[in-house]
Amino acid sequence: MDVAVVGGTGAEGFGLTLRLATAGHRVTIGSRSAEKAAASADEAKGILGADASVDGALNAGSVVGKPVVFVTVPFEGQAMIYQAIRDAIAADTVVCDCTSPLMSAVGGRASHVLRPWHGSAAEFAKTLLPRGTRLVAAFHTIAADALRDLAEPVDSDALVMGDDEDAKSLVGSLIGDISGMRWVDCGGLQMARIAEGMTPLLISINRRYKIRDSGFRVTGHSAWGDPRG
Amino acid sequence: MDVAVVGGTGAEGFGLTLRLATAGHRVTIGSRSAEKAAASADEAKGILGADASVDGALNAGSVVGKPVVFVTVPFEGQAMIYQAIRDAIAADTVVCDCTSPLMSAVGGRASHVLRPWHGSAAEFAKTLLPRGTRLVAAFHTIAADALRDLAEPVDSDALVMGDDEDAKSLVGSLIGDISGMRWVDCGGLQMARIAEGMTPLLISINRRYKIRDSGFRVTGHSAWGDPRG
Repeated sequence: MDVAVVGGTGAEGFGLTLRLATAGHRVTIGSRSAEKAAASADEAKGILGADASVDGALNAGSVVGKPVVFVTVPFEGQAMIYQAIRDAIAADTVVCDCTSPLMSAVGGRASHVLRPWHGSAAEFAKTLLPRGTRLVAAFHTIAADALRDLAEPVDSDALVMGDDEDAKSLVGSLIGDISGMRWVDCGGLQMARIAEGMTPLLISINRRYKIRDSGFRVTGHSAWGDPRG
Repeated sequence: MDVAVVGGTGAEGFGLTLRLATAGHRVTIGSRSAEKAAASADEAKGILGADASVDGALNAGSVVGKPVVFVTVPFEGQAMIYQAIRDAIAADTVVCDCTSPLMSAVGGRASHVLRPWHGSAAEFAKTLLPRGTRLVAAFHTIAADALRDLAEPVDSDALVMGDDEDAKSLVGSLIGDISGMRWVDCGGLQMARIAEGMTPLLISINRRYKIRDSGFRVTGHSAWGDPRG
């Protein structure tokens, strides 16, 4: 599948790019800088091999014609990025927002939650996109280090939220293509208020145990695919 | 160890009682009704065998002389319960608050978060207890059904928060005595704002997948005991 990773030059986005490309998808890294996007695409190919399908583009260009767009940017850049890409997103595009609103966005601690007026960064994103955009939220609890370390499967489940069931399943199927990962349908987009807030808990755990890749597995059920399946 | 489970007639508290008694601890169930407490203690002995050390008492009486007190009550009863036990709690007692503030406390949905003024139910509890009480928060993500099903180990990690490191380790050691469970030090008491909010996410997951015992395992580290250990 053709996917864009807006913010793919950052640690989380770059890790996601590596994993999706490893799974055989064609990934376009979006950045505010065409040079940085190209450099990250080259770096990805250096890691994955020259035949990996990764290229780079400006943010707005990266999303054109892509059925799925991941947005992996810090909260302080979220509004600007969505304003940059909104006119380039087609009506049926599935957008997966991965933003966690942390106090570090305003000079505070990354282990503290910042609560947007709209309830969550995902719901804020909804107001920044054309009405009817198929918005999903995921990846808040997946460590960049875990994505980046291709030698190991990702030992975390992706918590997936959204109001469009088919969009959620589509993002879920991409998640399921990443070695080790499963997706768990956590309900409507508003539930992102909870999942986004779990990032600072993992940051706190990482600090206390001096690690960098804590995550969550959801227990109590043998399969965590489409709950309708 | 002698422990009290205030609210031990409820599903979560009763499950915790069974697990702690199974691990060899002496458990006193606290209730607003002495008759209900005695009936739950009898039920526990019926399940565990007559030599299990479980008895029942009124809430205030249940905590007297106990080094560790678990409080497992619905949010709408939390203030009343702490007012009932506060004078009976000794200065060095470790109190483990297990409250999740859900919108169901005010007639709304259990899958929606209610945000107390103090940030979390645990921080609210702190204001209801004598200054200096050694308060820990835990068990927000442990399903009552998983605790109750003694045929299976509990496939969930307890997220533990608190500002008193020794109190946290003491509660952690009790958690470690429960089959299958590990404890994860998530930082100071304020981090309960996050852990308490994860209960509604599990309720949402339970509903979507038609299960009753979803939970979380924390990944990324082989051992999740005392981070100082």
